[in-house]
Parts: sequence; structure tokens; C-alpha cells
Amino acid sequence: MPGLTNPSVDYSAWYNEVVLQGELADYAPVRGCMIIRPYGYAIWELMQQALDGMFKETGHQNVYFPLLIPESFLQKEAEHVEGFAPECAVVTHGGGKKLEEPLVIRPTSETIIWNTYRDWIQSYRDLPLLYNQWANVLRWELRTRLFLRTLEFLWQEGHTAHATEKEAIEETHRMLGVYRRFAEEWMALPVIPGIKTESEKFAGAVQTLCIEAMMGDRRALQAGTSHFLGQNFAKAFDVTYQDEAGGRQHVWATSWGVSTRLIGALIMGHGDEKGLRLPPRLAPYQVVVVPIYKTEDEKTTVLESAHRLVDSLSTSARVKLDDRDTVRPGFKFNEWELRGVPLRVEMGPKDLAKGQVVLARRDTGTKEFLPQEGLAEHVCATMDDIHRTLFEQAKAFRDANTFRVDTWEEFRERTAGEGGSGFLLAHWDGTAETEALIKEETKATIRCIPLDNPQEPGVCVRTGKPSKQRVVFAKAY
Amino acid sequence: MPGLTNPSVDYSAWYNEVVLQGELADYAPVRGCMIIRPYGYAIWELMQQALDGMFKETGHQNVYFPLLIPESFLQKEAEHVEGFAPECAVVTHGGGKKLEEPLVIRPTSETIIWNTYRDWIQSYRDLPLLYNQWANVLRWELRTRLFLRTLEFLWQEGHTAHATEKEAIEETHRMLGVYRRFAEEWMALPVIPGIKTESEKFAGAVQTLCIEAMMGDRRALQAGTSHFLGQNFAKAFDVTYQDEAGGRQHVWATSWGVSTRLIGALIMGHGDEKGLRLPPRLAPYQVVVVPIYKTEDEKTTVLESAHRLVDSLSTSARVKLDDRDTVRPGFKFNEWELRGVPLRVEMGPKDLAKGQVVLARRDTGTKEFLPQEGLAEHVCATMDDIHRTLFEQAKAFRDANTFRVDTWEEFRERTAGEGGSGFLLAHWDGTAETEALIKEETKATIRCIPLDNPQEPGVCVRTGKPSKQRVVFAKAY
Repeated sequence: MPGLTNPSVDYSAWYNEVVLQGELADYAPVRGCMIIRPYGYAIWELMQQALDGMFKETGHQNVYFPLLIPESFLQKEAEHVEGFAPECAVVTHGGGKKLEEPLVIRPTSETIIWNTYRDWIQSYRDLPLLYNQWANVLRWELRTRLFLRTLEFLWQEGHTAHATEKEAIEETHRMLGVYRRFAEEWMALPVIPGIKTESEKFAGAVQTLCIEAMMGDRRALQAGTSHFLGQNFAKAFDVTYQDEAGGRQHVWATSWGVSTRLIGALIMGHGDEKGLRLPPRLAPYQVVVVPIYKTEDEKTTVLESAHRLVDSLSTSARVKLDDRDTVRPGFKFNEWELRGVPLRVEMGPKDLAKGQVVLARRDTGTKEFLPQEGLAEHVCATMDDIHRTLFEQAKAFRDANTFRVDTWEEFRERTAGEGGSGFLLAHWDGTAETEALIKEETKATIRCIPLDNPQEPGVCVRTGKPSKQRVVFAKAY
Repeated sequence: MPGLTNPSVDYSAWYNEVVLQGELADYAPVRGCMIIRPYGYAIWELMQQALDGMFKETGHQNVYFPLLIPESFLQKEAEHVEGFAPECAVVTHGGGKKLEEPLVIRPTSETIIWNTYRDWIQSYRDLPLLYNQWANVLRWELRTRLFLRTLEFLWQEGHTAHATEKEAIEETHRMLGVYRRFAEEWMALPVIPGIKTESEKFAGAVQTLCIEAMMGDRRALQAGTSHFLGQNFAKAFDVTYQDEAGGRQHVWATSWGVSTRLIGALIMGHGDEKGLRLPPRLAPYQVVVVPIYKTEDEKTTVLESAHRLVDSLSTSARVKLDDRDTVRPGFKFNEWELRGVPLRVEMGPKDLAKGQVVLARRDTGTKEFLPQEGLAEHVCATMDDIHRTLFEQAKAFRDANTFRVDTWEEFRERTAGEGGSGFLLAHWDGTAETEALIKEETKATIRCIPLDNPQEPGVCVRTGKPSKQRVVFAKAY
């Protein structure tokens, strides 16, 4: 296995190597598409389980809508078609014949879902509809990166329908809260919950909420979005309900989603020069046991103990015994470090004679000698500590790279060069023109206006015009 | 809610009504596509969980390959392209431009997967690869039915690679065994495991194994297939490995899949004139609790007890409390019977005074008065009994509709008319010509040659030519 490029030298090369050498994903024969390998898919399954549980706890049910959408559906919502039509893959032939109307592969499912909600919603008694689907979607992107931006990606998309504006807005915030909790409690990633500007919001939304995380190269990554859609889709697809007084009202809507891009966030949020560092709750293997022996006799004894240990650990953790005979322990150490396994147990004949093992932490690199007896409890406690440590490290890194910027000169300096800029808290005059100008000049975009943003009078960092609050600028993925 | 058509009058209408009124699925705006509603999707999730667990127990890991396949890939395996190309949906445009090479939406993923296995397999040490994926696929069918045959459907497809023919054949049988166990132990459906004839096998397989079930109208339904692919795809995509002696060998392959069609099998395998009868292990709600009251005072008391009962049951079963105020208990009874919930608990003030409830079984229609105390245990035992009863009923029905047919006259009689034929065990001369002739004349096809089929000399029911064994004929979905 070739060594990894140092992330401080070439972050992008390092990222691709972690994905490819760690066998998380591979390039597909179709440009911009990706093959998710077992290790990467196992992370996605753990993410799905956690999120799906949270969706169900908040009253949502899963459904499945078709992959193919009549092209005319997209046209019905003006902003939506403008945003998505250029990114669509179009099916023109089926069963050997040209289709009367071309079909697009869903880039997102608002249109086909709201076309159906018209049939499912008659009365206020039918509301709310709290549905989610796990699906693949496709957007014809020009510049792609494994996990971060691929033509096809896997995601979940929630689509809810409500009787009132208030309920829909509450739902939008509730689901952003779920995403934030997931980022913090499962991914060990601190995020800033906020509001997208008009230029950055979802095509068809009234308001887009998001969580923004900082990656190891100090770029921002949007890790989840929750959209308040107002009555835009209800009006486009004529979805009304009879209210309690007998009148007809248009329905209010939300949609929200996260995708396999979160695996990219996990890699870049925690990775180091040795590779991935997985937070334990999302690690396919939380503990890898590496037996160490030289002679055949030692092998027998050590493997026997290793199997017993794996059995005793496997009720409290996901454990992998690496009993390969074809590679040496040092190779295994490197490989599992690259793949981010939180804990490694080393067992040699000398350790066994003393009734102990070596426990090595991937996050801090520390090694401890520990008695075999009671190891399971220690492993559980250590995993919690690893989660906390990863979160604190990521938070400290983010805080150290978050700057209050008051002059255009400093803004230019901090956004100069190829790397990330960190989060720049700066005043902005609130216009799309200035936002576009700053983006053009620095590649930095407004990641969000934080929720509960402190109000503080100031002047726009670019135009000097008055501003009431700072927003978060960054160069982003 | 309109009443159901009696299945003995119009089975097909009954089936559609159960799907639509039971809110399992709905028609999509694209011809032949389907929307899976929460209740139907919940059944699919339970199927997925059970199957996924069985796949993992047998050493398989999940992966994800792209939706889009270059058209040229299909061409590489002669039989495969002949079978699937006519059914493909073709993407000709992406991102507003015409593509240089059209892409097909996967009808199945052998080609893109074996194109990748070429890179992943170098040495015997890389084998076996035991991978599965959960995905959507699309086949441009002309005649469609909700769940049974839709353009797009959800499925899992296992794709394994082996060093030897023997291992690959063993895998093919192992996975058929998994499907058989799933059909029996989860779906409560008896199935015949067998081998498909050359005409009916998968396009590109050396041999296709299948499980065949009998539906309530005495038609057969193929409920799962497991293909031994020989070296066909390895040769088409040039996938070789270095063996222990240093030579190069082509890899051996299998693939196997089941789909959302199984939900159709569940409906038609157990349904009756009142609707669906779900086997408890796949029932989204295993118990529905219906409170019965007239006055507001009664309502308070009954609902309080109902909540307590639901709490006490919910650790051992999936329980739904139907506390809707808008419909009467009788309506609820009908609705949950239509939707196939295995057990219903009725609680009224008189029952409560006696510390008892009514427990009604969907499968047999029997009602018992039972003490509230210890109800959970009784519910668990009853669910096991319902599973057994459904299985035994389905088996008895199948046995009663399986016939040894020795004359062409009887064969014609039993296949006459629009309905199903039952399973006809008849001799066949082993030629594709006779098979095609019988299909043309009677619409009956050879469902399978049962595994471990008793060898018994006889003469072909159609041509009188010698035959060594009976095969299973039936009209099928």
C-alpha cells in the first residue's frame, strides 16, 4: 500500500487517497459516478439507521416515489425548473421506442410528490403528511469528487405537508435540529445552523435552513438542508384542503435532505495524515483485534485468546479480528489506521502471559496496557471518550479558524490562495449584488446567517454600506 | 370505503382494490410506475431487515453501483443483451447536451459490476467477493401490475465471484436456500425450489434456480431467483485471477435477487374476501387496539386503559392504537381487516370492568375474551400460531391444487379459462419446442424442475416422447 500524501501538502490528493486506499469508494465507468464499496456503504448504513430512527421518533414514515418524472412537471414551479432543469439526465427512449414526453431522472422529488399529494390531501384531517424517502438522485454536475459531488448520489428526502404556515416553519426547524443533533452526536462534528441567503437557497423554497461544518482544510461544507417551501409547490400543483370552517386552503410544505456527501464530511472533518478517524458511533468496526505471534505454537495460543476476546467484546462493540496470515502486524496497524478504526487491540504471547492486552486509540495515538478482564466496559467508556475528543478537536479547530473580519484587506488576505479560508464573520449589506461580487473576487460565499444571530450594527466589509449583523463567509465545497 | 370485490368473482379487481384501498401503493404519473405508500413500504422495510440479516449471516456485504450503465456494456454478453436491451430505458441527454454514448438505466447490474470486478480481483486471495446491493432497477414492461410487474421496482441483487465452479454452484444453492427460508419463515408461504428450463432462465446464466409459490387464484408466482452464471460474465469482461499455482483463471459467478414483487406474493398468497392477511413477522402493526365507548366518561376511562395496554404490549409486538374519533369501531374493524393486521384488541367499558379484553384473530376470525394481565405473552404465542396457520392453509391450498396430469385432455381442461391452473405435474420431453408449443396452446409454462425431483419414466404429456421426470407446469404471474 503506498503511503498517503500529507494533507497539509495536497489536501485534495490526500482526500482521494483516503477514499480509494481506504476502499470506501471507487470511480465508476460513467463520468462523475461512484461505486460505494463495502466499507463506505457500511458507514452509510449506520448513518441511515441513526437518521431513520430520528425521523420515525419525530413521526415520519417512509415512502417511495418513482425515479422518473415527466419533464413537464419540472416546468410547473418557475424557480425550481430554472434551478434543476439544466442538471437533469433525460430519458428519451424506452422499450426501443422514442417516448412521447421525455422523462427526467429525479434531481429531487418535490414535483412528483406534490403532484401526488393533490390526490392524497382533501381535508384538514389528512394533514400533516410527514413522509420521507431513501433514494438515489441524479444531477448532471460538471466538476465531481467522490462522495462530495457525484452525478448520482444516495440521500433521504423528507417531504411534508401542513395545514398552516406556522406548522410548516416549525417542521423546517425541527428537522434542522435533527440534522444538527445527528452531526454532533453521531458524526462528532460541530455545525453552525443558519439560514441561506436568497442566492444560495433551494430552487423553489421560501427559505432554506442549513448546517455548515468546517473541514480540515478550513473549507466549509454544507452538511444538511431543510427548506420551508411555503405554498409554492401547493400552488404549482393545485394542492388544497378543506379547513375546519369548510373553506379551501393551499397546503404548506417543507422538504429536507442529507446525502452520501456526509461520508466526505466525516473524512475531512476528522481525518489526519494517517487517514480517516471515524467517530465510534459510525465506525463499521469499532475495535480491530490484531494478534501478534512468531511461531506456530504462539499463533495457536494467541488466536485462541483472540477469538475469546472478540466474543466477549462483540456484545458491546462492533469488533473485527484481523487474522490474515499474508501481512504482518505493522501493515495491519497502518491499514486500520488509514481506515479510521477507533480502537486497536494488540495481543502477543507476552501480553497474554500477563493476562493483559494493548489498547491503542486512533484519535490520540495513545496506548495502554489493560487487563483482559473487564475490557468490554473499558472499551465502551473509551469509545464515548473518543467521540467527545473528536468533537472537541473539531470544535477547537473550527474556533481557531473562525475570524471576525472588518476590513476588505483582511478579507482578501484570508481568502487568498488555493486553500480554505476558515469561517469569516463579516458584515454584509444584504444585497445579492454584493454577495455575487465577493464571490467573484474571492470565491468565498455566504454559508449562512446563523440562527439567533447576534444583532450588531456595522458596515459591509465590501461596500461600506450599513449592516445589522455579521454573516458567515467561507470558501466551500 | 367501498367494499371489496369478491376474489372468487374477479381476482384481479380484488387484488388492485386491496393494494389501493389498503394504501399499500398507488399509481404514478408515469405509465407502469408505482408509488409505494407508508404501509406498503413498512412491509418492504421488514422484508429488507430480515433478508439483509440473512445475507450478512452468510458472509455478504452491501455495496452500491451506479444506476447508469454505458450501452456498450450490455453488448458484451450475447445472451444478456438479447434479453435485456429491448427492455431498457435510455438516457440520451445530460446537462442539456446530447451524450456521446447513450446510457441505460440498469435493468440488472451484472455488466457494470463485472466491469469493476476486473479491477478488484487479481489473486485467489481476493476471492470470494460476496456482495449485495439494495437498489432500484427499471425494465420497460408493456403490461404492468402494482407490485407484481412495474417499470421501476426495488430489489436486492447479490453478485458474487468465486475461484471455482464448485464454490459458485454452492453459493447459488445457498442463496436459494435463504430465499426459501425467508418465504417460509417470514412470509409463511410454502415454495417449490427448482431449476428453470433453458427457455425460462436468466439471460446470461448457465443455470437459474428459483422458488415458485402458488397464489390464491391458483396461478404460480416466481418469488426469487438465484443464478449460476458460470464464467460468462468473467469472460465477457475479462475477469481473471492468479491461482495458487501462479496460473490465470477466469472467475466463476453467481447473482440472485428478490424484489418488491414479494409484497404482491404476500397479498395473493394469504388474502381473502376481507382483504390482506399479513403474516405477523412482516406486519407493520401486529396488533391494533380499538377502544370502544359511547359517553365522554367512558372514553376517558377506556382510552386511559388502552394507552396502558399499548405500553405493556409494545415491548413484545408492534402495536397501533386506533384512537380516531372520526370513525366508528365497526369501520376500524373493517379497515384493519382489509389491511391485514394479524390481531385486534377490542376494549369497552364492560370488558374493562371485568379486567378483560377481546382478542380477535384476522386469520381464523375467532374471538376470545382474555384477562388484560399477561396479555403480552398470549399475543406472542398467538402470533406464532397465526404464522403456522397461514403457512398450513397456504400449503393445504397448494396441495389441493397440485395435480399429476398424464393426458393432454386433462392438461387442456385444467388450463382452460381465464383463471389459474394450479400446479400441474406432468411429463415433458425436454425440448424447448414442446415447451413453447404448450405455452402457446395453454398459456402454461414450466415453472421449474424441482430440486431432488423424483426420477420416474413416463411419456411427454404433449408429444408422447419419452421423459424421465415430471416438471411443474402452471399459468403464472
